[in-house]
Amino acid sequence: MQIVRELDYTPNLVAQRLSTGKTLAIAVIVPFFTTPSVTERLNGVVSTLAKSEYDLVIHNIEEPEQRADCFRVIPRRDRVDGVLVISISPTDEEVPLLAEASVPIVLIDTHHPALSMLNQIFVDDVAGGRVVAEYLIGLGHTRIGFIGDQANNPFNFTSSRDRALGYRQALEAAGIPYRAEYYAENPYGRREARESAKRMLALPERPTAIFAASDVQAVGVLEAARELGLRVPQDLSVVGYDDVEIAEILGLTTMRQMLFESGQRGVELLLETLENPETEPVYEVLPTELVVRETTGPPSC
Amino acid sequence: MQIVRELDYTPNLVAQRLSTGKTLAIAVIVPFFTTPSVTERLNGVVSTLAKSEYDLVIHNIEEPEQRADCFRVIPRRDRVDGVLVISISPTDEEVPLLAEASVPIVLIDTHHPALSMLNQIFVDDVAGGRVVAEYLIGLGHTRIGFIGDQANNPFNFTSSRDRALGYRQALEAAGIPYRAEYYAENPYGRREARESAKRMLALPERPTAIFAASDVQAVGVLEAARELGLRVPQDLSVVGYDDVEIAEILGLTTMRQMLFESGQRGVELLLETLENPETEPVYEVLPTELVVRETTGPPSC
Repeated sequence: MQIVRELDYTPNLVAQRLSTGKTLAIAVIVPFFTTPSVTERLNGVVSTLAKSEYDLVIHNIEEPEQRADCFRVIPRRDRVDGVLVISISPTDEEVPLLAEASVPIVLIDTHHPALSMLNQIFVDDVAGGRVVAEYLIGLGHTRIGFIGDQANNPFNFTSSRDRALGYRQALEAAGIPYRAEYYAENPYGRREARESAKRMLALPERPTAIFAASDVQAVGVLEAARELGLRVPQDLSVVGYDDVEIAEILGLTTMRQMLFESGQRGVELLLETLENPETEPVYEVLPTELVVRETTGPPSC
Repeated sequence: MQIVRELDYTPNLVAQRLSTGKTLAIAVIVPFFTTPSVTERLNGVVSTLAKSEYDLVIHNIEEPEQRADCFRVIPRRDRVDGVLVISISPTDEEVPLLAEASVPIVLIDTHHPALSMLNQIFVDDVAGGRVVAEYLIGLGHTRIGFIGDQANNPFNFTSSRDRALGYRQALEAAGIPYRAEYYAENPYGRREARESAKRMLALPERPTAIFAASDVQAVGVLEAARELGLRVPQDLSVVGYDDVEIAEILGLTTMRQMLFESGQRGVELLLETLENPETEPVYEVLPTELVVRETTGPPSC
């Protein structure tokens, strides 16, 4: 994102980079960057880095094996000066690659207890899932479905699994038995969530509320309700997670995450560490906020 | 997007880059990459480049003056091996910066007659705008509004202006007088389009159809109709442009562009030119397709 401002001669950049020992590049390792929530985090990164002297090199991960390759190859001083990792949880085997990297790394929307030497910015997804389920229970729902991503997925994405855990904790705390038929996981996507919701809503005793692990998946649930002629929220309450633009357009109740801010904060921490390598790493938990719109209400039956 | 596959020692990249005389980096200069249509073009770039040896350096343009700086500084052999410019039309003053660049450049979703030495991939937006208006006229509409971007904008974006030109051509060909009160332009955005639509729909003789220059703006028009209690399509037909995901979700009639494919094709042409610099540049017009969904129908009055 380096925008060089001088109007005339600029010295040879390779020479400049060699003489300073810097690449003047920051890498971002990001999964499926066209996912709306990820695009918004990346937006925070891009906007904030634009004010610095660094270029941004983007490494988009769409295959699980790319992840380890990236962790192995990218965080090296001859390639980049620093790395941002967005929403990709390192496996235990990959932790040493990041712990021993020769450049500073910041983890955004992901964390690992063995990586306390790195700056980590994330959201407490267990607490977020619990708040959503407690809100639905508070409205009077007891038949509450959850539709999310595969808990065991080759990318080691953890957010859906953590939100589901919070959901189960809230059910348990309220004395509501967990029902396996009200829990569905799929590869991430609107269509996959829609098909799951259609199956769940065809049960003899269907849920009166569905909590989807993301706004995109909640849109699939809304589409399923429409196909089945169920009114939202009278027949079915729907809650998403993220608060991306589609949530506002559709009036979706959702758990807002600080997406843009997470990218912004990640860049700030990385630049601080580049400036002063002795800075103590921080472990920041960004707040979430339940945004109640038109897709939730008390159960009508 | 280079994913180096070797598992052990990799030679020093700076040395490797110096010895080959290559940076192994491709720059993309892109405006507002979080705009859904731009994200989808960028997705085509990222996915296609991932299969090559090149890294992708992203330069996001959010201020007009960044554009000239980027055109001046980025396309240089010591920085990158090639450049993709997405959706940013060079001004006449900027043309020499691109014409005389020392690395290959491909223009995606933009073109300029004085840059015939570059590969250019674009859509005929005048024809696209004409097709939309002809479709609405064919349904029986004569009071057809247009809501788009500012024709004179500091970014020199041309797509909205060209679509509006096609709209006017179709009206004229059908003998329907152009009415200035049915034409509105704003800075790009859903909210801005919504406010314009509300003003237009409050006219004593309101339009029975509105053509928005993008799906995002069409969503604003749909929101305005909902606020005013107008039924779509009975009281108001709405057409967008792009066919991004929100169009499918909302059942919006729209002009589909080959967004992903435009990025893919741009990378292919750039890699071909890097491989064989003597390749003749091409000037490709990608097809568009009208996708009729639920927001259009004959006027009811």
